[in-house]
Amino acid sequence: MYQHILVERVDDTARITMNRPSRRNALSAEHLGELLAAFGEVAETDATGIVLAANGPVFSAGHDFADVAARDLDGVRELLRLCTEVMTAIQRAPQVVIARVHALATAAGCQLVASCDLAVAADTAGFALPGGKAGWFCHTPAVPVARAVGRKRLMELALTGDPIDAATALDWGMVNRVVPAAELDDAVADLLGRATRGSRASKALGKRTLYAQLDRPEADAYAVALEVMAQASQEPAAREGMAAFLEKRSPVWPG
Amino acid sequence: MYQHILVERVDDTARITMNRPSRRNALSAEHLGELLAAFGEVAETDATGIVLAANGPVFSAGHDFADVAARDLDGVRELLRLCTEVMTAIQRAPQVVIARVHALATAAGCQLVASCDLAVAADTAGFALPGGKAGWFCHTPAVPVARAVGRKRLMELALTGDPIDAATALDWGMVNRVVPAAELDDAVADLLGRATRGSRASKALGKRTLYAQLDRPEADAYAVALEVMAQASQEPAAREGMAAFLEKRSPVWPG
Amino acid sequence: MYQHILVERVDDTARITMNRPSRRNALSAEHLGELLAAFGEVAETDATGIVLAANGPVFSAGHDFADVAARDLDGVRELLRLCTEVMTAIQRAPQVVIARVHALATAAGCQLVASCDLAVAADTAGFALPGGKAGWFCHTPAVPVARAVGRKRLMELALTGDPIDAATALDWGMVNRVVPAAELDDAVADLLGRATRGSRASKALGKRTLYAQLDRPEADAYAVALEVMAQASQEPAAREGMAAFLEKRSPVWPG
Repeated sequence: MYQHILVERVDDTARITMNRPSRRNALSAEHLGELLAAFGEVAETDATGIVLAANGPVFSAGHDFADVAARDLDGVRELLRLCTEVMTAIQRAPQVVIARVHALATAAGCQLVASCDLAVAADTAGFALPGGKAGWFCHTPAVPVARAVGRKRLMELALTGDPIDAATALDWGMVNRVVPAAELDDAVADLLGRATRGSRASKALGKRTLYAQLDRPEADAYAVALEVMAQASQEPAAREGMAAFLEKRSPVWPG
Repeated sequence: MYQHILVERVDDTARITMNRPSRRNALSAEHLGELLAAFGEVAETDATGIVLAANGPVFSAGHDFADVAARDLDGVRELLRLCTEVMTAIQRAPQVVIARVHALATAAGCQLVASCDLAVAADTAGFALPGGKAGWFCHTPAVPVARAVGRKRLMELALTGDPIDAATALDWGMVNRVVPAAELDDAVADLLGRATRGSRASKALGKRTLYAQLDRPEADAYAVALEVMAQASQEPAAREGMAAFLEKRSPVWPG
Repeated sequence: MYQHILVERVDDTARITMNRPSRRNALSAEHLGELLAAFGEVAETDATGIVLAANGPVFSAGHDFADVAARDLDGVRELLRLCTEVMTAIQRAPQVVIARVHALATAAGCQLVASCDLAVAADTAGFALPGGKAGWFCHTPAVPVARAVGRKRLMELALTGDPIDAATALDWGMVNRVVPAAELDDAVADLLGRATRGSRASKALGKRTLYAQLDRPEADAYAVALEVMAQASQEPAAREGMAAFLEKRSPVWPG
């Protein structure tokens, strides 16, 4: 069914792996279409978490210039809409999505990492918005990167096009953990395990509300979060959580 | 007058101390009501700064599940409105409000710290949004936490529910200082002293304008700040500050 | 032509140097007017980058109280509008603007640094919003500073008025590099060189779009960036960049 990616299920976790090493996992329209379909597919399952990984020497090199160069304005617009839909699908998925970054992630590949809820990088990883030193600026990749790192750091990434290493990405808040490459899978599993504990329904609502409030003025954010939190208090998960706490027993989450 | 908190005045500083150690300073409606009343009371005084502190082994464990579990939707909505009013009262107070965090601050307790203008933590402190690993997600606590730390770090806190230690909170910008527990009061007094120097009227207007401009697009923020700053230039405090500077003497602030 | 500043051209770089050391480069209306004229002048040239530097023991002490104290409300409003125009001109310039900060930058001087796209500081530099400890709060300087550092850090800077050193400014994201004073020019040249590689037209559009999307909700930011990026793909610079990549040759940027 998929040509460019692998979709697996291991226990409670879905794993989507970009698998076109020879093209450095460049995000052609076909590749993006498969990612969008895969996120749509696993979002419907009872998986509690999704790992976005990649095979080969590069995590993802971003857009496929062979694909872009052949397109007119309408064609590129369509391609970028598809790309933005993939980023949005990651944030819209009810599951926690974690990037497993083992190598260089550039342009829309870096955008993928910035768009995941969480990210764990090997010390062999790197991150760049290389359009800044060439002819096609990384306008859309800069959108989620701007929201992960500070303004001066965004400017440095976007204007220089130079890569930062994993330790710098951790310092700037682009990733949550950096580990030796041999420990990458364990670190991903550990953080994802922690991030998927508890009630699945409660977590999905929580993730959706985080993205809904993040960009708003604080008073608007409170209005959104307050109403969701009040309604959530009446749901079975909250009821069970509070009852278990008050009765000093382990909770049993209602699905 | 107060059952759950202590309100004291020492020199120019008001100190509000959560004082229900046996309930881990859980924020019942009564407790929140007292905090709201206390911030309203001290806001009217000539205190220049407010310390928010807590007694007992926990700074605050957030909402009191015994209180929440008994409420229907309207009841929880009312409770969360009260809680949000407390957070807003902290930001609206004309005084500089500093959190003195000696121990674990979770959920709405963590929200209190994030809502204070400044925060000093002992190395024994910790911070968590634990709803993420249970049944009632920390939707509203995540609002000010999101505005203090980066996006990926917010996601980690909110989705895992795991605590971060004081050093991590400092690195992420959640607190301004971390010191050994024995030096906590000195560090709070030192930072608050620095933050309350100068003209009280000018500082109150400054604080209000910071919160007014923070969340706006930059051009709107400039429009707000520019008009306030122009008008402030005509006030006695600005006139005295400039005159003292130009005359090379110490200023005498007009109240 | 200019009394308070120096404007030079070295190779591809324009250099604007505040040159009123005896007044600690205080930003009088005349000084601000010259900065605005200079940024307007060099923006029209084919320079690829602009260095904002200063001579003397202080980078800039901010507004000139001798100038402010003599003004009524309309006069101060006019002065602050001019100051805001300078900040906006820096962001609007098609060139990459980098601050070269060798010493203390306070109030509107700190605002200048925060408003530049990039900043390199010597370890002898410092940054402060001193209005917070005096009578005229740094309302407008806090606007770009708030957007460069976290909220609690902004509060500390604005409320205490105390300076932070260069290392702290680097940690907080206010500057991109800190180096020993003797290496400052080399570090500025290195970072600016990296930030000005590639197509000049593409970079100018990139910079403009970064500032257009930064403050917007993420969905709006994507809408802006997506349309710009689609249109940019049809421009000569993008066409040449992709062709060169696909043909494995060096690009020749079309101006």
